[in-house]
Amino acid sequence: MEFVFLGTGAGVPAKQRNVSSIALIMPEYKGDIWLFDCGEATQHQILHTKVKLSRVQKIFITHLHGDHIFGLPGLLGSRSFQGGIGPLEVYGPKGIAEFIERNLAISETHLTYPIKIQEIDEGIIYEDDTFRVVCGRLEHVIPSLGYRIEEKDKPGELLVDKIKEQLNLTPGPIYKKFKEHEWLHLQDGREVRTADYLGPTKRGRIITVLGDTRPCIGAIRLAEQADVLVHESTFLKDKAEGANAFGHSTAEQAALTAKNAYVKTLLLTHISSRYQESADALLSEARELFQPCYLAHDLWSYDID
Amino acid sequence: MEFVFLGTGAGVPAKQRNVSSIALIMPEYKGDIWLFDCGEATQHQILHTKVKLSRVQKIFITHLHGDHIFGLPGLLGSRSFQGGIGPLEVYGPKGIAEFIERNLAISETHLTYPIKIQEIDEGIIYEDDTFRVVCGRLEHVIPSLGYRIEEKDKPGELLVDKIKEQLNLTPGPIYKKFKEHEWLHLQDGREVRTADYLGPTKRGRIITVLGDTRPCIGAIRLAEQADVLVHESTFLKDKAEGANAFGHSTAEQAALTAKNAYVKTLLLTHISSRYQESADALLSEARELFQPCYLAHDLWSYDID
Repeated sequence: MEFVFLGTGAGVPAKQRNVSSIALIMPEYKGDIWLFDCGEATQHQILHTKVKLSRVQKIFITHLHGDHIFGLPGLLGSRSFQGGIGPLEVYGPKGIAEFIERNLAISETHLTYPIKIQEIDEGIIYEDDTFRVVCGRLEHVIPSLGYRIEEKDKPGELLVDKIKEQLNLTPGPIYKKFKEHEWLHLQDGREVRTADYLGPTKRGRIITVLGDTRPCIGAIRLAEQADVLVHESTFLKDKAEGANAFGHSTAEQAALTAKNAYVKTLLLTHISSRYQESADALLSEARELFQPCYLAHDLWSYDID
Repeated sequence: MEFVFLGTGAGVPAKQRNVSSIALIMPEYKGDIWLFDCGEATQHQILHTKVKLSRVQKIFITHLHGDHIFGLPGLLGSRSFQGGIGPLEVYGPKGIAEFIERNLAISETHLTYPIKIQEIDEGIIYEDDTFRVVCGRLEHVIPSLGYRIEEKDKPGELLVDKIKEQLNLTPGPIYKKFKEHEWLHLQDGREVRTADYLGPTKRGRIITVLGDTRPCIGAIRLAEQADVLVHESTFLKDKAEGANAFGHSTAEQAALTAKNAYVKTLLLTHISSRYQESADALLSEARELFQPCYLAHDLWSYDID
C-alpha cells in the first residue's frame, strides 16, 4: 500500500500546498484506491499522479470544512466523465449527503455509477475479509472524524519443503487448504495441524488518518499501535494557544499523540500557509519528541511497509 | 481594461486548461475586478496572476454546470481569509443563491464581507455612471446566460489651448465644469457651449461574454457591435452534430455569430480536452470566417482597447 498526498496545506490553497486530500493506493488489493478528504482541486492534483478516478472505490471525509470537501462534487462528476462505472462509497459526518446531493442536483451532474453515501459517527463503519475500518470522534470546531484502517492478519508462508519431507505430499490443490483450515485430514488418515506447516502469521497493517483536531483521547485511541499515523500539524508550538482555539494541533502535539499511541511512523500534514518557506521547522519540532517522523508535501508518495 | 483567462477548458480540468473562469481587470476604474464564471480551482489559477480576491467586486455566472460554478464556494471563503471586507455581488441564473448559501452553510464558511446574490434572467441587471450590464438568454441544455458590458461614453479631451485663446480662461476649477455641463455661464456674462471646447466624445467599449450555447439569436443580440466577444468554441465543425446536441458551438459557428453581430474582435475559449494538442485547428477554422480572432489559453491576458 502507498499513500499519495494530494494536498498538504491548511485552510486555503497556496502555490506549494493544495488543500487536504490523500490517496491510499493498494496494488495488492486489485489496485483499489481510497481517498481521505477531497479539498478543492483534488482532481487537478490527481492529473499529476498515477491515481485513476475510476479506481477510486471509497472516499472518507473527516469533516465538512470547505478545504476538505469542496473538491468532491467536481471529482464525482469527472469520475463519470472518465468512464467510471464501478460503485463508489462516500463516508463522512452528518451533512455530507446533503452536500453531495444538493451540489449534484443544482449542477445537474448525472453520475454514470451508483454512489452510496453513509453518514457516520463512530464505530466500525466497514468490514470485509481484508479490512476493518473504524471511525472515531476528534475535537475540532465542528464535528471531525478520524479513520483507522485495520488490515486483517494473513496466514504465514507455506513451508513447502517441510510439507514434502514430513507429509510426503506433492504440490497440488491440497496445498491451498493449508491456509484455509486449522486441521487437515489426509487421505492416509493422518490429522495435520496446518499451523505447523506455515510460517509466522503476517500481521495486518494499521493505518490511521485523522481529521483536523486538537490533541484528544479520541486521536490516541484511533492511532493506538498504528503502523502509520497521518496527523495534522497546522502550527508550531509557539502558536499553541491559537491552535487550540481553532481546534488544531502543533507539530509537538502531533508527536506527543504518536508517542502516547505507540505508533510506528508519524506523517505530518495540513500545514498552515504561514510556513510556506519554513515547514521544516515543524518537522524538527516533532522529531524532538518522536521518530521516525516525516513531513508530507504535495504529490509525495509514501510506501506503507 | 484587460481580460485574464483563468480557465479555458470545457467540462473537466486538464493539465493545460482549467475549467471556465475569466477575470476582467479594470485599472481605470479603481482597480475593480469582475469575474465571469468560477469553475473549480479558479482561486488556484488566481494565485498565478495579479488578481487580488479582495478587489473582486462582482461575479457573473453564466449557468450552473459544475465546470462553471464549483470553484465559487472556495473562492468566496478565501476572499474572507485574505482580508476581503468590501461587498461582493454575484449574479447568476435561478439556483445560484441556493448553491452558494447551502455550500457556505454546510461547510460553516463565515464570510467577513456582505454578499448580495441576484438571480437574474434577462434585461439590464446593473447600471451606474460608468457601466450598464445587460443579460440575455442563450441556448444550452440548461438555462445559460450571456453578459454584455456597456461602458458609457465619456466626454472628449479638454481643448485647453482653445479655452485659453478664445475664452481667456486660466486653468482652475472652471475647467472641470466643461465636462460636467452642456452650457457654462462665464463670469463676464458669456454663454459657452462646452462641446465646442472638447475633443470628440470617447465611445464606451462593449464587451460580451457568453455562457455555453449553440448558435442562437440571443448570442447575436448580446454581441451586437461589441468591441470584444468571448465565445465558447468547444468543438471543430466536424463535430457540429454533437455540439448541437450538447448545446455547444463549433469554432466556425462562433465566428459566424461574431460576423453576424458585427463585433470587432473574437476571443475563443471553452475548448474541449480532446483538442489538447490541436487547439490551433479551432483557431484556423474560425479565422476562415472571421478576423481578428484569437484563441484564449490559461493565464493569457488580453488588453481591451
